[in-house]
Amino acid sequence: MNKYKLLTNLRGLMTPDPSQLWKVDTLDDPNIAISEGRIAWIGRRSDLPSEYSKYEQLDCMGRWATPGFVDPHTHLLFGGDRSQEFNRRLHGATYADIAAEGGGIRETVRATRLATVAELVDIGESRLQKMRSKGILHVECKTGYGLELESESRLLQAYSELIERGWSLDITIMPAHDIPVEYAGRADEYIRMVSEEWQPELVRRFPKVASFCDIFVEAGVFTSDHGRQVLESGRKLGLKPRIHADEFVHTGGAELAAELGAASADHLMFCSEKGMADMARAGVVPTLLPATTLFLGMKDFAPARAMIDAGCKVALASDFNPGSCACIDPLLILRLACLQLRMTFEEAFTAMTLHPAQSLHRNDIGHLFQGAKAELLLWDVKHPLELVYWMGEAYMPEIVSPR
Amino acid sequence: MNKYKLLTNLRGLMTPDPSQLWKVDTLDDPNIAISEGRIAWIGRRSDLPSEYSKYEQLDCMGRWATPGFVDPHTHLLFGGDRSQEFNRRLHGATYADIAAEGGGIRETVRATRLATVAELVDIGESRLQKMRSKGILHVECKTGYGLELESESRLLQAYSELIERGWSLDITIMPAHDIPVEYAGRADEYIRMVSEEWQPELVRRFPKVASFCDIFVEAGVFTSDHGRQVLESGRKLGLKPRIHADEFVHTGGAELAAELGAASADHLMFCSEKGMADMARAGVVPTLLPATTLFLGMKDFAPARAMIDAGCKVALASDFNPGSCACIDPLLILRLACLQLRMTFEEAFTAMTLHPAQSLHRNDIGHLFQGAKAELLLWDVKHPLELVYWMGEAYMPEIVSPR
Repeated sequence: MNKYKLLTNLRGLMTPDPSQLWKVDTLDDPNIAISEGRIAWIGRRSDLPSEYSKYEQLDCMGRWATPGFVDPHTHLLFGGDRSQEFNRRLHGATYADIAAEGGGIRETVRATRLATVAELVDIGESRLQKMRSKGILHVECKTGYGLELESESRLLQAYSELIERGWSLDITIMPAHDIPVEYAGRADEYIRMVSEEWQPELVRRFPKVASFCDIFVEAGVFTSDHGRQVLESGRKLGLKPRIHADEFVHTGGAELAAELGAASADHLMFCSEKGMADMARAGVVPTLLPATTLFLGMKDFAPARAMIDAGCKVALASDFNPGSCACIDPLLILRLACLQLRMTFEEAFTAMTLHPAQSLHRNDIGHLFQGAKAELLLWDVKHPLELVYWMGEAYMPEIVSPR
Repeated sequence: MNKYKLLTNLRGLMTPDPSQLWKVDTLDDPNIAISEGRIAWIGRRSDLPSEYSKYEQLDCMGRWATPGFVDPHTHLLFGGDRSQEFNRRLHGATYADIAAEGGGIRETVRATRLATVAELVDIGESRLQKMRSKGILHVECKTGYGLELESESRLLQAYSELIERGWSLDITIMPAHDIPVEYAGRADEYIRMVSEEWQPELVRRFPKVASFCDIFVEAGVFTSDHGRQVLESGRKLGLKPRIHADEFVHTGGAELAAELGAASADHLMFCSEKGMADMARAGVVPTLLPATTLFLGMKDFAPARAMIDAGCKVALASDFNPGSCACIDPLLILRLACLQLRMTFEEAFTAMTLHPAQSLHRNDIGHLFQGAKAELLLWDVKHPLELVYWMGEAYMPEIVSPR
């Protein structure tokens, strides 16, 4: 493949502007010059500097260019599925009923512990291909269905092999996703084990695989003190904190994320006003998961508008997982953000591209300005607004990539 | 094509039972015998009567068979789209702001009045193909973006040509969809015109095209008295009433539907308990449109559970239209019904197949029992529950059809 390319015959281009909060640029009849895998220039065709006019031209056939979606919160690797349990819930069984029978997350932990690394890699590969075909070009992936050292280690091994195969991922270590049956009633002891033994050992075994650590701070699961313990231990190992916070009740998760300088606080259905102000001040990216709200049959989506008004850089994510959101569909998230979270199209678009990239501390994805990785989406629409308006269309972008 | 076929190698079959309210049958390893375009027999392979064993076999490759979806509420034919106005609403413009500038439904009426019959047929053909590819095999279609005699007549002409091309449709005459600009402030006069002149003339011009009539009874649009006038006039012409009822406020639309013996009452977000009891008693099918609730950014979905408890045969529909639900996606509706309307999978499935067929007074579609039209869907899933559980998958069924 030629290392110098000029993308021509675009109907338009839409990209967030990394230099300015919530600013989205659109250009009519643009050209995009690519040099050695990076964007060298974007602008109107009529302004094209002569140095780029000799690049090999790629005819984009009147489509719109956007950056790829970035998904900053997934539980990509797990074994089994929970479709049968799902209908039991529709018939009125509660999570507690199902858990009492050994179902729910325990079922997924059991299936994940039984999976080999090769099986996990195959599962991951097929899910990442599905994501990519829908325009998600970078994915954050968590461990957390192993809940014991060797199983968590196998998950990291699988993620490491997926990265070697060329997938663009950020990995988060999260053994504090739930209290495993072996530690029932002994959460303090489990958290001590995770903080003092497993996290250091996992980082020792896979020194360059994970960049982040995470914990589910929630009533009945882990406390803020547990969160502080796990995330401070992670930080000493070079892992940056993320937090599952304020999902079902207000536990002060957003405040804790701000206190610890976390990269993101995720879920936030029951975030306080103080939590929003704290996140804005500390630069924590609130990461909202509207498909989970829908999947769980909840009515009230996270307070995106209040967060934007508080000055937060809101991001959106899928939360892909077998229990509360078995869903890979970036357009559904974009649609829910506009229709139910009351974000404008430009805000929702920024929250699917630039802001999640920033929460992953990546400055070369999520936008199309000079220096960005030259991997982008071409959409066959008159205007990107149609991606939300035609709510039932399964639009599939073409991916332009140096890969 | 052979008129006698035996569908074999099915993993399973799921169909509502027309003889019993809310009963859904599933069969493992079934066979389906088709004779001259009708289902002659369904049952377990081991019970296959010998007379069918000589039919030509069709290998279904381990898939699940279900009846096709029936969509009992669409505004299929309209010109233009409203994607730009849509983002203005996300930016805070109200319907009133947009209407004051001549936008909203007036924009669609303008574009529809400009369209030729040939253009309308092309638009309809492409939308029906999309519906069919997603498993919708029978569609109710309304007029109502003409709002004057010749334009409504062109819509009926287009529907009539689509039926001639083989599409399985039921047509509803609905000039009382809104008050056209020409009649602003003169709703009574408009309704008199529709009831006394246009409806009789449209039926005279297209004597066998439409089976139903409909009106939008809503605060600020048409009153219950208008409804009674239009629908009783329609009934005298042989058109069975349907009603857009109780969508934004309680106007007694469900009660009116029961009083008039309407085939369906649709929307019903603000239906009263009395309205539910009345509909159950009168056999009116409450038709719920959850994708519209989502598209309009409303929080409270129609009270499906209360209607089921009141003894109603609930149906689900798309409401496909350019203003409040630009969406063709039966799986989204199935998913919203389970997740947000709190219907079980079996209830939602019945409300997408058998009940809408019954509301259209069709007894040979929406199920797979003996005598049903032999047009059905094959799904590549381990169990149909996956259609809801894997919430982001754009499953596309294969269609087995005598057509």
